[in-house]
Amino acid sequence: MVDTAPAQRTTPAGGTRPAPDVDAPNADATGDPAAGTPTAGTDTDVRIDVELVQELLLGRWAEDRRISRRLALDPAMQKIEGQPIPEHRARVLEQLRVLVDAGAIQRPYPTEFGGQDNHGGNLAAFEELVTADPSMQIKAGVQWGLFGSAVHHLGTEANHREFLPGIVSFEVPGCFAMTETGHGSDVQSIATTATYDPATEEFEIHTPFRGAWKDYIGNAALHGHAAVVFAKLVTAGVDHGVHAFYVPLRNAEGAFLPGVSGEDDGPKGGLNGIDNGRLAFDHVRVPRTNLLNRYGDVAADGTYSSPIASPGRRFFTMLGTLVQGRVSLDGAAVVAQKIALQIALTYAMQRRQFPTGDGTEGVLLDYGRHQRRLIPRLATVFAQSFAHEKLLRTFDDVFSGREDTPERREDLETQAAAFKSMSTWSALDTLQEAREACGGAGFLAENRLTGLRADLDVYVTFEGDNTVLLQLVGKRLLTEFRAKAPKDAAATAKFVAAVAASKLADASGIRRLGQTVADRGSLTASVADLQDPRTQRDLLAGRVDTMVAEIGMRLASAGKDRARAARLLNRSQHELIEASKAHAELMQWDAFTEALDEVTEGDTRRVLVWLRDLFALGLLEQHLDWYLLHGRLSAQRARAVSAYIDRLVARVRPIVPQLIETFGYEPGHVRAPIALGAEQARQDEARAWFAAEAAAGRLPEQEKKPRP
Amino acid sequence: MVDTAPAQRTTPAGGTRPAPDVDAPNADATGDPAAGTPTAGTDTDVRIDVELVQELLLGRWAEDRRISRRLALDPAMQKIEGQPIPEHRARVLEQLRVLVDAGAIQRPYPTEFGGQDNHGGNLAAFEELVTADPSMQIKAGVQWGLFGSAVHHLGTEANHREFLPGIVSFEVPGCFAMTETGHGSDVQSIATTATYDPATEEFEIHTPFRGAWKDYIGNAALHGHAAVVFAKLVTAGVDHGVHAFYVPLRNAEGAFLPGVSGEDDGPKGGLNGIDNGRLAFDHVRVPRTNLLNRYGDVAADGTYSSPIASPGRRFFTMLGTLVQGRVSLDGAAVVAQKIALQIALTYAMQRRQFPTGDGTEGVLLDYGRHQRRLIPRLATVFAQSFAHEKLLRTFDDVFSGREDTPERREDLETQAAAFKSMSTWSALDTLQEAREACGGAGFLAENRLTGLRADLDVYVTFEGDNTVLLQLVGKRLLTEFRAKAPKDAAATAKFVAAVAASKLADASGIRRLGQTVADRGSLTASVADLQDPRTQRDLLAGRVDTMVAEIGMRLASAGKDRARAARLLNRSQHELIEASKAHAELMQWDAFTEALDEVTEGDTRRVLVWLRDLFALGLLEQHLDWYLLHGRLSAQRARAVSAYIDRLVARVRPIVPQLIETFGYEPGHVRAPIALGAEQARQDEARAWFAAEAAAGRLPEQEKKPRP
Repeated sequence: MVDTAPAQRTTPAGGTRPAPDVDAPNADATGDPAAGTPTAGTDTDVRIDVELVQELLLGRWAEDRRISRRLALDPAMQKIEGQPIPEHRARVLEQLRVLVDAGAIQRPYPTEFGGQDNHGGNLAAFEELVTADPSMQIKAGVQWGLFGSAVHHLGTEANHREFLPGIVSFEVPGCFAMTETGHGSDVQSIATTATYDPATEEFEIHTPFRGAWKDYIGNAALHGHAAVVFAKLVTAGVDHGVHAFYVPLRNAEGAFLPGVSGEDDGPKGGLNGIDNGRLAFDHVRVPRTNLLNRYGDVAADGTYSSPIASPGRRFFTMLGTLVQGRVSLDGAAVVAQKIALQIALTYAMQRRQFPTGDGTEGVLLDYGRHQRRLIPRLATVFAQSFAHEKLLRTFDDVFSGREDTPERREDLETQAAAFKSMSTWSALDTLQEAREACGGAGFLAENRLTGLRADLDVYVTFEGDNTVLLQLVGKRLLTEFRAKAPKDAAATAKFVAAVAASKLADASGIRRLGQTVADRGSLTASVADLQDPRTQRDLLAGRVDTMVAEIGMRLASAGKDRARAARLLNRSQHELIEASKAHAELMQWDAFTEALDEVTEGDTRRVLVWLRDLFALGLLEQHLDWYLLHGRLSAQRARAVSAYIDRLVARVRPIVPQLIETFGYEPGHVRAPIALGAEQARQDEARAWFAAEAAAGRLPEQEKKPRP
Repeated sequence: MVDTAPAQRTTPAGGTRPAPDVDAPNADATGDPAAGTPTAGTDTDVRIDVELVQELLLGRWAEDRRISRRLALDPAMQKIEGQPIPEHRARVLEQLRVLVDAGAIQRPYPTEFGGQDNHGGNLAAFEELVTADPSMQIKAGVQWGLFGSAVHHLGTEANHREFLPGIVSFEVPGCFAMTETGHGSDVQSIATTATYDPATEEFEIHTPFRGAWKDYIGNAALHGHAAVVFAKLVTAGVDHGVHAFYVPLRNAEGAFLPGVSGEDDGPKGGLNGIDNGRLAFDHVRVPRTNLLNRYGDVAADGTYSSPIASPGRRFFTMLGTLVQGRVSLDGAAVVAQKIALQIALTYAMQRRQFPTGDGTEGVLLDYGRHQRRLIPRLATVFAQSFAHEKLLRTFDDVFSGREDTPERREDLETQAAAFKSMSTWSALDTLQEAREACGGAGFLAENRLTGLRADLDVYVTFEGDNTVLLQLVGKRLLTEFRAKAPKDAAATAKFVAAVAASKLADASGIRRLGQTVADRGSLTASVADLQDPRTQRDLLAGRVDTMVAEIGMRLASAGKDRARAARLLNRSQHELIEASKAHAELMQWDAFTEALDEVTEGDTRRVLVWLRDLFALGLLEQHLDWYLLHGRLSAQRARAVSAYIDRLVARVRPIVPQLIETFGYEPGHVRAPIALGAEQARQDEARAWFAAEAAAGRLPEQEKKPRP
């Protein structure tokens, strides 16, 4: 580098402030169907109720979020960019002790262990910690969200009394030892065993081969003194599947106990404040009572018992208690995006580059491309924020026991899998776009975008690999489809024929043609139609239903031939994942639209509706090929989609400062110098210098162009 | 965590090897137009001429690449992941001395300074260094590709004699001080001045305000003893625009010389082996002869002269000499992608996850989604590799002086801008997909994907921000359009009307309908048609032409109203960049297709044609909405696109090991343990263990499912 740039001066885009002009009535003759609608030009006068939207975004657990945000303002809790790994690990360890002292991690535990039985608030508070240091957040997640939570939810009262106090107080830093080098997503296939020995009333924890080492385990390399180890419980010669065991790892001096060994995972792509490592167990013995025995127990004589008869259902029930990891990553991904957009948008409103017609230079956010890069992402983060709040309420309903039904649990699983996948991928995308939008300054660690991206990278594959999670969502969608689909052969044939006919209609362009005729001569009608939330929902929901039906029918064609069904499913895997994403997008849209109910008519609602529309139309634009191919949008309406997005982006442009304010983050959360006035100060100084030199007659003349 | 994953076992996709089955004639009744063509099923027998393709990829400067690859095998030249920044900076400094001793950096210089006048070979060799450590590569680029190259190309013989020996020998580590905090992409607006003083025959280099500090400058924080400083040359009260000056920075002890000051840029998102920093000059004086005076000179009395009369053309000529940075980044981005795909694809062929029907577990690359994630990117990297070779030849033609014409230089600028933008973005995308495809293992620094991604991040915004570069390409396209467009009002009106009519035809679905009828009943005909390179080229080129024409006509509507034209251009900025990308894709396709001429009929050519088709159809799929909207593809043909991609991906699947081999990289270049047998060894050990336990009757029974 980073000697940036022989990028020749290109005066790339004129660069006069476009916002008001774009909306001037009949500003041009480009045939843009969105031009010429009269509402705008006054948009700079739009004032939203910032506090109201702030509260809406903070959600039900606003107070927990506020407390956590205050904690994150303490410089001692914040990441030092570029800190060497050993120091960073030590610093994060200390930060966890601060969390305990501040009462920041006790919320979800039973009151008898100093907790508040506050599940939603716990995750809300946890999510905000990402603003201080994602390593600190995730190491806390390992200790209390995984290690402690496993004891809490998979253990019984005796386990709680024995193990929870040390975990909550952090006297016993611990590990959540589930993943093995050989198996991550497929937990059911892990190979560590816990074999019961009735003679001594102990379990023997054993790692049979290298692939069965526990791997990527937070706290394993250095700080973990105990672990919840997932292993196959074997008693009386029978393998009862995966169960969790409390296993001491290190002595008071930090040395491994006999039979335990391990390795440091070494440097990682991010989150280097956490000491991830590997663990292996060579016939390590623990008392029978170290089995976390809520869902499965072994009597002294070796007899196995469980309240859940089916081994499969038992396994999924146990893993289901761990859904909170996904829920909280969804929330953290939303928080990180707010910070990223606040940095990039603030910089874009102050940074000037390239001369404009009037002799000054334009700010980046007045360039058409720059608006398109950042403003639609602002709409997306609002959608994800409302979707997350909804997910958090579902989570709290289930975990508080208020609505702990199998259906509600299944909703929770599906929502968590869908939203976590979408928001964590979106976070990487937004962080990268923000970093690029800030150019070389975005690459400096002090401006935080690269560090956040590096730390959040693993969010897309841990706590459930996004690709695997979306397959879970897809399976649920297929199950629902099957429940709806006709059962007997004759009806199925009819059903298939009906869908085939509609496909033919698509292919022949008949539908599209009809729609075009209806649209003809009413370009603005297309836009008006797309503004209608019923149209938006019909389009989004119709896409999900059709995609799932197409896959479902294809699979149904296999009949009872399971090998063939498996092949067809594999061939449809790519499409199924796309269908799951479409479903997640629909749920995000629903959440955004429901949130609008909280806001009465007026400018605030108007602006939020623009953002919702921008989110919806962004989805339509992204999947335009599908809509055209299936005849759901005519060419006319399809053109209106992009044109109306351009229109909305220009409308939102002047309101960006207010929208950023609704996030409610303080300079101590943002921290990037380029978003805290450094750039504005430089711009002001440069302008003042040129003005003073010009006034004093000290500026040199420009070399004249030669006469032709 | 990285306690990966309560990702519940989902048996996501059956997972039997799909490749042969997918191609079985009439394997299913899904209406997939690509199913049922008989060629395949024998694809595993396909053997390509690996050496031939290897040579094709190595290109004209194969020997320079080989020499550089051997150098990269030296562990002393390789990055130590997680090394603290100060040590990493010191290590890279030493590596640069090794490059000098090895004769690795002298190629482009004149023979009298120990060089070979070998411009293409120099970049080819440089590109390969990315496999060892991108920091080492880029720091070498700063010293010899920017600092040295500026003296070489912007200086005259006297400058060469005075400055080049110290630069080539690395006795004088130096900086390329062009970018300022306030101006990167807009170099013409930098604010550092070099004011000539005839009394002392010196230039006074001065930084007027904070925004004019040189920033992101490699070698500035620590190692730079001199710099080529870009500043506005002022003499006799006239500003002659940006020129380059050789300015000493530090004394032998490494302390700043009087008047020079600076700062360390601190930790960055990557490339932390380079000491980027800031520089400021407080009335620093250098002799008149320190002006690099090839394109502009100042006589002792202060008279300015230049061989190029126009200040604008002079500026662009000076910057044009620096195009090699972009060319070489394009090549390095291709190399990095080959390494990334080799890692992820190798792992995907060894890693097993989730049980399949027959009791074993499937390898990742047999899952439909996994194939879709990685195999199309393999096709893209072949396209980019051939495109880069073409660019490199253009570069060598110009820089060797063999074809140094204004037209050829303009081609070079456009190709370099277009390819560099596409390949550097593609590199980030491919590295990320590869890292995610390797799950938690992909996040470990030892497996290199996160480190390469972090280091290559800045490639998309330095040496010309991609967004700005694509606007340059777009401007060229618009200029060409204007040259073709009719000149008089009447003809323009007719031209516009003709395009409008075709637009109407699109909108009404008439064309599409016609095409559907033509396609009807011949599903395979659609596929056959898409396989025709003429069809592919027509579709790709037609898209570029139409996009440019649409924007061009819109701008033409402004007539002589320049403010209006600027507004319209700004509104079209987003579209113009998309048009530039389309143009770049077309050029990549052309390069791939031309490369096929080098291969005679047979399996090798067949496979390369599959890859070219996969690249082409990938582009059609990506832009399907555009093709549908403009009536260039019927719904029928559009469906054939995705179906044929699925087909091609399955065909290529069994040939992946051979294709990886054509890259020609050795284990010492790849280095990721997961791609060098660690995963295979674990899989083998686990299988052997289970087999032995089963044979010995030691495996426990599985708990039985309860009776219903």
